[in-house]
Amino acid sequence: MNNSKVIFFQLFEPTSSTYTYLIADAETREAAIIDPVFETVERDLKLIQELGLNLKFILDTHIHADHITGAGALRTRTKAQTGLSEAAGVKCADLALKDGQILGLGDKKIYVLATPGHTDTCLSFVFENRVFTGDSLMIRSAGRTDFQQGSSDKLYRSVHEKLFTLPDETQVYPGHDYRGHTASTIGLEKVLNPRLGGSKTREEFGKIMADLNLASPKKIHEAVPANLQCGKVAGDL
Amino acid sequence: MNNSKVIFFQLFEPTSSTYTYLIADAETREAAIIDPVFETVERDLKLIQELGLNLKFILDTHIHADHITGAGALRTRTKAQTGLSEAAGVKCADLALKDGQILGLGDKKIYVLATPGHTDTCLSFVFENRVFTGDSLMIRSAGRTDFQQGSSDKLYRSVHEKLFTLPDETQVYPGHDYRGHTASTIGLEKVLNPRLGGSKTREEFGKIMADLNLASPKKIHEAVPANLQCGKVAGDL
Repeated sequence: MNNSKVIFFQLFEPTSSTYTYLIADAETREAAIIDPVFETVERDLKLIQELGLNLKFILDTHIHADHITGAGALRTRTKAQTGLSEAAGVKCADLALKDGQILGLGDKKIYVLATPGHTDTCLSFVFENRVFTGDSLMIRSAGRTDFQQGSSDKLYRSVHEKLFTLPDETQVYPGHDYRGHTASTIGLEKVLNPRLGGSKTREEFGKIMADLNLASPKKIHEAVPANLQCGKVAGDL
Repeated sequence: MNNSKVIFFQLFEPTSSTYTYLIADAETREAAIIDPVFETVERDLKLIQELGLNLKFILDTHIHADHITGAGALRTRTKAQTGLSEAAGVKCADLALKDGQILGLGDKKIYVLATPGHTDTCLSFVFENRVFTGDSLMIRSAGRTDFQQGSSDKLYRSVHEKLFTLPDETQVYPGHDYRGHTASTIGLEKVLNPRLGGSKTREEFGKIMADLNLASPKKIHEAVPANLQCGKVAGDL
């Protein structure tokens, strides 16, 4: 939402239960979109236009397996640069993002954190008092670690060494939620997350994740190849 | 979300695309829930317990036609009072809320606004810099006015005389959204709302609403009678 300095909107795509985020510096109107979905690109473009924003960055928290990113379609319709983890090694991304990298929106900064574990390409983005955690830290949950180079050891370290060291009041905005929650805080997840919070050890987390026995995402064979090319482009609409 | 003084959570029920809101005074932990849904009562109770809140009020913005309220079930599980518009005239509500009434959460105040038009029982609730508008003012939209004593003239007046006179920066949280938007502001809706914003007259709004030709909500014959009894109770779970 808006305050005098920052613009923030959370958007939802119901088929894949994906959250897309639009963030901007209110003064210069420079904006970034995080985890856009191909099917909702028109909605997102309309909002960007309604707000008079200048889209500078199109960021994906990782190579998604459950939906096709809107990055490619948005890039053909705007002057924005696409950004993906350097670990993805894809040619379509304008920016191969590294841990510790900083992207500017006006005088505000987006801090890039490499948070591998759900996949090797997972990033989190910190903007002012919010962190966008993709499928790394989720609300009372954590992203699965059983495909795309997933590793519960890596995810445990990413969450404990990077995300849980952010201030407790930092607002957590995940890539998905399947129970209708929209946000949390680092402080709440440190205490209440049943997979990663409290006194859960790395070994306990590993066992929880190994025992999940989840089916593969329905769209994985379509989504991953498409997302390695930054999704479809506007001409595919 | 949380800041030092106020606790705020937005929750989503996907079958009816309903938003439920949990608001509280962070110091005293006194809380209110707005528009709970029967099917998600357990989720909401869990969150209230996790946050250590003392639920004081269960408020419905109106007699819903598309889902069954969780008010009855929550009342049997907490010590909270249910609140509904006095225009509903129902015996099950502990509080028959009037325009201008004030409910306290610690030293914070919930201001009750009667905003009839979608139904005769519609209320909006103002809490700090947020307004919960139910199906009166929606994001780039407005609640339908073709049943339950709906009136486009009344809704136009409610929005223009009550909601649009709130400060522009007031954050708007509706009862539903069907396009994945989660929030707006009074300032944005005054400009961008295609039904009620810009220079739209009452006559133009009336024509827009008369021409919608919407099908009846699927659950209307189940939901309205149940909601006139404050929904089901916990024993019905």
